[in-house]
Amino acid sequence: MRPTTQQPPISIAIVGGGIVGFILATGLHKRNIKVHVYEQSSGPREIGAGVAFSGPGQRCMRMIDPAILKALYSSGSVPLSDCGGHDFLRWVNGYDQPKPEDPYYETPLCELDAGPRGFEGVRRDMFLESLVKLLPPDVVSWRKRLVDVEEHGPDSKLVLKFTDGEEAYADAVIGCDGIKSRVRELIIGEGNPASYPHFAHKIAYRCLLPYDACHKILGDWKGRNFHMHIGPGAHIIHYPVANQTMMNFVAFLSDDGEWSDWQQMVSTGSRKDVEKAFQGWSQTVKDLVALLPDEMLKWALFDSWDYPAPYYNKGRIVLAGDAAHASTPHHGTGASCGVEDALCLITLLEQVIKTVHSNGVSARHEALQTAFKVFDEKRRTRTQWLVNSSRRVVDLFQQKDWAIPEKRVKAESAFEEVKDRSYKLWHFDPEDMVKTTIEDYDKQTNAVN
Amino acid sequence: MRPTTQQPPISIAIVGGGIVGFILATGLHKRNIKVHVYEQSSGPREIGAGVAFSGPGQRCMRMIDPAILKALYSSGSVPLSDCGGHDFLRWVNGYDQPKPEDPYYETPLCELDAGPRGFEGVRRDMFLESLVKLLPPDVVSWRKRLVDVEEHGPDSKLVLKFTDGEEAYADAVIGCDGIKSRVRELIIGEGNPASYPHFAHKIAYRCLLPYDACHKILGDWKGRNFHMHIGPGAHIIHYPVANQTMMNFVAFLSDDGEWSDWQQMVSTGSRKDVEKAFQGWSQTVKDLVALLPDEMLKWALFDSWDYPAPYYNKGRIVLAGDAAHASTPHHGTGASCGVEDALCLITLLEQVIKTVHSNGVSARHEALQTAFKVFDEKRRTRTQWLVNSSRRVVDLFQQKDWAIPEKRVKAESAFEEVKDRSYKLWHFDPEDMVKTTIEDYDKQTNAVN
Repeated sequence: MRPTTQQPPISIAIVGGGIVGFILATGLHKRNIKVHVYEQSSGPREIGAGVAFSGPGQRCMRMIDPAILKALYSSGSVPLSDCGGHDFLRWVNGYDQPKPEDPYYETPLCELDAGPRGFEGVRRDMFLESLVKLLPPDVVSWRKRLVDVEEHGPDSKLVLKFTDGEEAYADAVIGCDGIKSRVRELIIGEGNPASYPHFAHKIAYRCLLPYDACHKILGDWKGRNFHMHIGPGAHIIHYPVANQTMMNFVAFLSDDGEWSDWQQMVSTGSRKDVEKAFQGWSQTVKDLVALLPDEMLKWALFDSWDYPAPYYNKGRIVLAGDAAHASTPHHGTGASCGVEDALCLITLLEQVIKTVHSNGVSARHEALQTAFKVFDEKRRTRTQWLVNSSRRVVDLFQQKDWAIPEKRVKAESAFEEVKDRSYKLWHFDPEDMVKTTIEDYDKQTNAVN
Repeated sequence: MRPTTQQPPISIAIVGGGIVGFILATGLHKRNIKVHVYEQSSGPREIGAGVAFSGPGQRCMRMIDPAILKALYSSGSVPLSDCGGHDFLRWVNGYDQPKPEDPYYETPLCELDAGPRGFEGVRRDMFLESLVKLLPPDVVSWRKRLVDVEEHGPDSKLVLKFTDGEEAYADAVIGCDGIKSRVRELIIGEGNPASYPHFAHKIAYRCLLPYDACHKILGDWKGRNFHMHIGPGAHIIHYPVANQTMMNFVAFLSDDGEWSDWQQMVSTGSRKDVEKAFQGWSQTVKDLVALLPDEMLKWALFDSWDYPAPYYNKGRIVLAGDAAHASTPHHGTGASCGVEDALCLITLLEQVIKTVHSNGVSARHEALQTAFKVFDEKRRTRTQWLVNSSRRVVDLFQQKDWAIPEKRVKAESAFEEVKDRSYKLWHFDPEDMVKTTIEDYDKQTNAVN
């Protein structure tokens, strides 16, 4: 931390105390930028089970603050598929049964090298608890549910209004309030479909299964390593958790219908639904499904694919993470893109501070607007591409052609595309993002002055 | 040409005297590899209007023989969209009319830099005539329609049988016989759907329009440069040809139905069909369509997307160009991928000659099999990806969302994907392909010996 005796020239309010909000706050605090997090829940409890981080996501964490990466690794994070230090994504054909002499055989379809520690998984709640500890307690306010952000002229601070009637003041507001973001609604407008998530026509059935029973069905190789079993209209992923005592199991089923309520994405599903989707699949898949409990949680997947935000910024308010670009989880990179956002914003806010040092504190609100405009330009294309790409790859995983033997070659040809898309996510260069972000900010600042 | 007094140890038969066949033959002949082209038509007349070559396609030509690139440039080839030496692809929204004060306004959607001379267009027939002149006449036999290729044991030459009852002999056969390839049918098997092209559910209406009339409608910028006007269910491309006296115009219409006969892909269409598809589009598009003649050629687009070849090689027979991977034209890179194929095959056949020099002439048939196996491994993934990608981008160009104002942002977000796909084609490195092709051949040869 760089100590200073000066009053910080700007104050940042972060709405939403999830992973991206806390990473962003930690980075700003470390750089002596005044920040405060407002979170509606009563403490650091994330719903949702696990979250994975890509190589670039982890590099961004290190660049923001090495303590964040340490917090990840000390929160029980594990490589999802560790083979000699590298993580791999692997797809097998869960539908066809080409070897009658081995009913458990599934044709390997594709294996992609995500690099060293390229796919690090962690329990959301444990990571978040570690992140919260990186900040002084007085930087976070719990039980603050945002109602509105008011602007009273270019020279005044923004006013955040909460459901409990309290107010807070900040020079800028960053909405990290997730897929159901209130900040997005304020920026894009109430009633605009881009202000709300929409059903992605996939439902995830999730549970933890006993590891030993799964290991017996999957064999040692598939049991120990992350695999996707794909086929027409559905797919399954699994990987060991809790020190190989449990198997995290998720079945993704297609659902062409609608989902009535985006406020209520989680409900209870039954094994029967899953069994129905995997009728006629490989013995491996059917045996795994038979291990499921009668009832389990089912998650309707929502995202911003149908109605992406036309912009992430409005004046001194900006969106980051899922609030900006809610994605289905099929690339496993949504959270990492939020961390990339955080690094980009921190880079820009450091530049804003420099502008204030040279041009005076009266320049701060214009500088913040420029910064958020540059953020929108740097991040919107990639992150909306991620949302699109996650939809696309699940369509490829679940293409109907898997069920048609004469279409097998065509179906398999999709993996060149899956590879390109994964590499685009994994080969992202955070150093280059920082460099070009500063260049773009300087360009726009000089154009104004 | 490297002169030699030795009898060439191997002889190559090329079936099909199209662009890829002649480029391949020229490269082999220059390297003193015995080659003969068998073409069913009576002379160098290609059907089809124009063909474009990417930067890598042109680099491959230079690496095969600089005379080929010279032949291209001296056949009246022109940059399709020359702006300061670079070619650009440009998309405009042909459907919406956001500026009531300017009925001809069309929102620019995307502009991609294809690099210096990155999109060089030429008339097919003129380029082919120039290519034929690069070879001695006795290397080509016209009016030879292939019936069969017979193999009489590993030590014998292959026997090519033609419809006129004649036979020819060669150590290896390369099928460059296009989308309706007989060699593919022989390799993959009669009756196998992968042996035949299938309807791509798009129909191209093509004609040459008077340049001045188009220029008046399009304005100077769009008139002089290649543009795509896109919208729901259809799109239009145009670019000046014949020294800016004519405008090449193609309208691509969607057709969810079937096309009865893949042997007959061309028929006559009417302006009325095109008018119907572009009802409600921008004034620019409607005015261009009004220039069309009452009747014009329409081409049903066929490709190998539905049933890609499971392999391009069988023993000493191999496929290249459209015979291997027939694509719709939406990337404008199908011919260039065929030229990449030719460079890859020439590289491998040079290695085969080296093997024969070291291991003796009895090793030649095994070496040819290895070479073609390596060719299949090097080329099949990329070229089948091209076929898929051409289908994908036209779906993006013609997505129904263009017609829905609330979906405009989503529709536009597709261009990040179009960019990645175009760059994958344009940023291909022929030198690297040659290097890794030799490495792979050596690896497989050493593994055998």
